[in-house]
Amino acid sequence: MSNFRVLKRDKKTGARLGELEVNGVKIKTPAFMPVGTQGTVKTQSAENLLQAGVDIIVSNTYHLFLRPGMDIISNAGGLHKFMNWNKLILTDSGGFQVFSLSDLRNIDEEGVVFRAHTDGSYHKFTPEKVMEIENTIGSDIAMMFDECIPYPSSYGYAENSTKRTLRWAKRAKKHFRSLENPYGREQLLFGIVQGGIYEDLRKLSAEETVKIGFDGYAIGGVAVGEPKSVIRDVVSYVPELLPEDNIRYLMGVGHLDDILFSVARGVDLFDCVLPTRLARNGTVITHKGKLTVKNGKYKFDLRPLDEQCDCFVCKNYTRSYIRHLFNASEILAANLATYHNIHFYMTVMNEVRRAIEENRYEEFAKEFLKNFEGDKIE
Amino acid sequence: MSNFRVLKRDKKTGARLGELEVNGVKIKTPAFMPVGTQGTVKTQSAENLLQAGVDIIVSNTYHLFLRPGMDIISNAGGLHKFMNWNKLILTDSGGFQVFSLSDLRNIDEEGVVFRAHTDGSYHKFTPEKVMEIENTIGSDIAMMFDECIPYPSSYGYAENSTKRTLRWAKRAKKHFRSLENPYGREQLLFGIVQGGIYEDLRKLSAEETVKIGFDGYAIGGVAVGEPKSVIRDVVSYVPELLPEDNIRYLMGVGHLDDILFSVARGVDLFDCVLPTRLARNGTVITHKGKLTVKNGKYKFDLRPLDEQCDCFVCKNYTRSYIRHLFNASEILAANLATYHNIHFYMTVMNEVRRAIEENRYEEFAKEFLKNFEGDKIE
Repeated sequence: MSNFRVLKRDKKTGARLGELEVNGVKIKTPAFMPVGTQGTVKTQSAENLLQAGVDIIVSNTYHLFLRPGMDIISNAGGLHKFMNWNKLILTDSGGFQVFSLSDLRNIDEEGVVFRAHTDGSYHKFTPEKVMEIENTIGSDIAMMFDECIPYPSSYGYAENSTKRTLRWAKRAKKHFRSLENPYGREQLLFGIVQGGIYEDLRKLSAEETVKIGFDGYAIGGVAVGEPKSVIRDVVSYVPELLPEDNIRYLMGVGHLDDILFSVARGVDLFDCVLPTRLARNGTVITHKGKLTVKNGKYKFDLRPLDEQCDCFVCKNYTRSYIRHLFNASEILAANLATYHNIHFYMTVMNEVRRAIEENRYEEFAKEFLKNFEGDKIE
Repeated sequence: MSNFRVLKRDKKTGARLGELEVNGVKIKTPAFMPVGTQGTVKTQSAENLLQAGVDIIVSNTYHLFLRPGMDIISNAGGLHKFMNWNKLILTDSGGFQVFSLSDLRNIDEEGVVFRAHTDGSYHKFTPEKVMEIENTIGSDIAMMFDECIPYPSSYGYAENSTKRTLRWAKRAKKHFRSLENPYGREQLLFGIVQGGIYEDLRKLSAEETVKIGFDGYAIGGVAVGEPKSVIRDVVSYVPELLPEDNIRYLMGVGHLDDILFSVARGVDLFDCVLPTRLARNGTVITHKGKLTVKNGKYKFDLRPLDEQCDCFVCKNYTRSYIRHLFNASEILAANLATYHNIHFYMTVMNEVRRAIEENRYEEFAKEFLKNFEGDKIE
């Protein structure tokens, strides 16, 4: 029995309304997952996340492995109990962080040796080791260990890497099957399609990954510094290489215009640090686009962050107050801005799902993007 | 008609149960006021404070004057609206900060010229000017401008300063009466008894301040670095120099043993940054005393911060998790610890009031302090 089912397909686009159920928790897709790198979505309590409408988050295997470490997570009975989160958790494979955060690494067929960004200690991640770590974390969805190919990469490098990731995928699945969940919970395993910007490699990766067989499929190696058009190019043809009945996850893409584009191509799941990181830096996202509330121009502005938003921050606090909090380096600034941004993403995904339900996704996306000026700072 | 009334007097001690009503908001005393220096109790939203049981906070005139500045507070319609706080606000006079934070100041009969700690700009505070600032802030309770005598000070210095503060008190009251509240709200004015550690000066200050006549009376110039015994000495005789029917406020004293001691001498109101500052530094306060949760010894401790506490932090999060958050420099650490500490103070003050109500304050205080090991770190 599959954990995912498509409830409805949009008539004009590839958008789908779906439902994922793991460990008794049902969530609707398309969904956006806020990122809780170190076992916390920065500044927000579990209570805040629930209030904002979040039902699935991402946490980072690489970070949790280094800090607090698996002994502490295991002692708590898994990450859910550790962080008091009763909804879903997806853990990434650490692949992206090993290549982007550690200042030294050595990759071979076996896996990757890297030096931790926290304390300089050396560690080795293999496909098997990562499965064991995610098993100890006890996430609802585990990602296989992959190499996230940098941009730009030569065809030769991408080809070798993509093929090695496929061999890793087989090893991951095999080892995953041999593990028992320590908390009596279910854990899904997702494969990751790599291939860089090369269509034939993406195709190879998709076909072979699907052959191995996973509960869901991710498109990896995008949003690694390449131009927007390149991301969209990949998203244009990869989803249709994946099974109709499995969930599809576009890793690390968080700009709302890209999300709306990708939903129309049949992507179901998204994650990105964008809304939470922007918030901590004083920028909130509204129906009209980005608004850098810490700017002096909002000194006397008694309007809410987003005049169309009904979150508790927008109902109770003004731009003038939140700008003051940022200006005075008050922690509450990051709290309020983060809450709003998460709530805003949840609202948009809700609007996305309703539009698909009502067969008007194309019109919805067009209308939304007409008002939403993407990266433009108000 | 007075805004304060004593509801009940404890039979064995000087403790009183009272009620203060300003602008339609009633609070019970003895009460502890968390400090919201810059128009926010650090890390906590107004919603958090209400949930923790807070009904009166202190905000700092000196800080608000410098940042965000009176134009922004005035534009928002006063501090209550600015920070979304519908309960009571007491503003201090800036006296303490002018002497402790600014790196240059010059005091004369007229007032104090000082250099702001924020941007080095020069400003002058006079008794009249401070009344105007507090009027613009729109607090429910305004404190008169005083000189907070440092410890130690010579008798000569203390005498001159105490007498000048008395002259300032007269000017403050006169100017206060001439001001109209810009928001149509009521504002009480409290006098401050100074005199340093000299009993005759304290007596003079109390008598003369009471003669001028204020809505409430504060004991100032304590908790400025002097030994605990000196604080207690002052608290032992000053309250009885003040009118029975007015509220009495001991400024800046926040250790719970000192608060319990002072309640027994007839003090009604307290404020201190202690619980919030300790929390941000990784120390929480429990029924057993202080607990430095960021310590390594709590790595695997699955107990709540305080096993006797029913706040949402203690119900949902473990020491192990909160220690990890501190260790990983996560903002949520400060949030959760601060919430607990504030909630804990509110719980203790609630227990204090119930004990007075039930004529068992002395027993309560003894029992509480038997388990509570004050400054001892568990």
